[in-house]
Amino acid sequence: MPIGKTVFLNGDLLPLADAMISPLDRGFLFAHAAYEVTAVYGGKLVDLEGHLVRLSRTLQGIAIPNPFDAARWTDIHQRLIAENQMTEGLVYLEVTGGAYDARDFAGPETLTPTVFLYADSRPLIGEAAEHGIAAAFIHDTRWKRRDMKTTQLLSQALAYRAARQAGAATAFLVEDGMITEAASANIWIVDTKGRLITRNLSESILPGITRAGVKKLLEGAGMAIEERAFTPDEALQSAEIFTSSAGAMIAPVVKLEGHPVGSGTPGPVTRKVQRLYYEAIGADLAKAAPWVLG
Amino acid sequence: MPIGKTVFLNGDLLPLADAMISPLDRGFLFAHAAYEVTAVYGGKLVDLEGHLVRLSRTLQGIAIPNPFDAARWTDIHQRLIAENQMTEGLVYLEVTGGAYDARDFAGPETLTPTVFLYADSRPLIGEAAEHGIAAAFIHDTRWKRRDMKTTQLLSQALAYRAARQAGAATAFLVEDGMITEAASANIWIVDTKGRLITRNLSESILPGITRAGVKKLLEGAGMAIEERAFTPDEALQSAEIFTSSAGAMIAPVVKLEGHPVGSGTPGPVTRKVQRLYYEAIGADLAKAAPWVLG
Repeated sequence: MPIGKTVFLNGDLLPLADAMISPLDRGFLFAHAAYEVTAVYGGKLVDLEGHLVRLSRTLQGIAIPNPFDAARWTDIHQRLIAENQMTEGLVYLEVTGGAYDARDFAGPETLTPTVFLYADSRPLIGEAAEHGIAAAFIHDTRWKRRDMKTTQLLSQALAYRAARQAGAATAFLVEDGMITEAASANIWIVDTKGRLITRNLSESILPGITRAGVKKLLEGAGMAIEERAFTPDEALQSAEIFTSSAGAMIAPVVKLEGHPVGSGTPGPVTRKVQRLYYEAIGADLAKAAPWVLG
Repeated sequence: MPIGKTVFLNGDLLPLADAMISPLDRGFLFAHAAYEVTAVYGGKLVDLEGHLVRLSRTLQGIAIPNPFDAARWTDIHQRLIAENQMTEGLVYLEVTGGAYDARDFAGPETLTPTVFLYADSRPLIGEAAEHGIAAAFIHDTRWKRRDMKTTQLLSQALAYRAARQAGAATAFLVEDGMITEAASANIWIVDTKGRLITRNLSESILPGITRAGVKKLLEGAGMAIEERAFTPDEALQSAEIFTSSAGAMIAPVVKLEGHPVGSGTPGPVTRKVQRLYYEAIGADLAKAAPWVLG
């Protein structure tokens, strides 16, 4: 998954190799930074508006001025897509508290942000979407404001490493006996009675933009959703599980803690959600995901 | 407080202005980094050995190889002190998971660290130590492994900003009805019966190197310490409060939530602790801190 050779840094498009920042940047010293990852499919940005609304909310929560309005953000995204000739992949965006010649926790009253974006061409509807992935339970050690999308991601990085050691591709984070979310995705379970359950929004989880998109599609299709916390046991006993995220879209989870989930293959509800989502982003199902047409 | 013009980055001493890192560094993307701050007094490093032991422990906990042995770390610190002609101040050290041309949470099995250090000349026994500072209670939103010293410092940065808004110089972090520690220091209270209390070590607080130094000095002087969690009310009703940290050494807290602590001026136990500590680092008390001789 090569990162596009042209990136955006503080107002300029420039070669990745020339994009350098100061080690005194508050993003590097204090993880004082917000980020977003927006999917691009068929050359078009998926739900950018939702990502930009959440970005504004995060920046406000962490006292960083939003350097651009929505039109300028959209323009930067589109120029990166064009420059890197990207048709499918992700645009990564980070806004930090900026750099100055000191290291002080509080920082200046008004911060001057550093802005970094890159485009990453990669298939979004691939192997994982078709065949599913394995997950492992990992203790959730994150900070308390997971509703803000910040670069305080060390817990998630370590959770992914622990999951890999357990032979899994992702981690299901567990706190106080309940599952919060996956290490970089929201989780949906389908119980044996066919009920769809996903954790309710709070400071404990990220309000996923893809989660919101899926919810809207499901409600449009007349499918009920139970929004509440659920336990690791409920997940282990569920008929189907999938995750939603900008990066992996809808990923079936077919193995949990080494046990098959339901039949051990992506189930009919998951396939239906994938179909709805892929249709909504304009995918040619016969070509991109014939396996949802079953 | 100017950062010294010569810094260390990945093996080289170089001018601060030339020290640049990639925005793909795991320190910038994931806060995947350990750090230490070591005091320098009279040109000599204070407790560097303790800092290096803690650094090793943090690096092990976050899966980053320690790039140097203690002798090499010491040499780098000493060269920075010499190059910047520093006699009093701090050496900041950060080791991250490094940069490579991708952004993936788990990262390579073996990470190749980025290493950054700088020297910051500043008085360590100054105004705050003489007259004391004000503190405010702020909700502790940090991650769960505060025993590891990582750059996941956004909570602390925001706590300092909130404290400043409340007219205070530092934040006393509160979780589940108990004080954990200050935003970048351990807290010690002296109750009205003269008992010294500081929170016991656990995953909830940082095992401060200065805290350990103070503890040893107090025990050497035959002073008892109660190590346990204490409440905001206990702090408000205490006779004296001080914090311990490498950066501020022993800082009297004379105002808490707008109320004077005890008499509202640094008390006799705090002065005694300062005196013991300053003597231990070789300070000339009559010159550097005549107010502890009272």
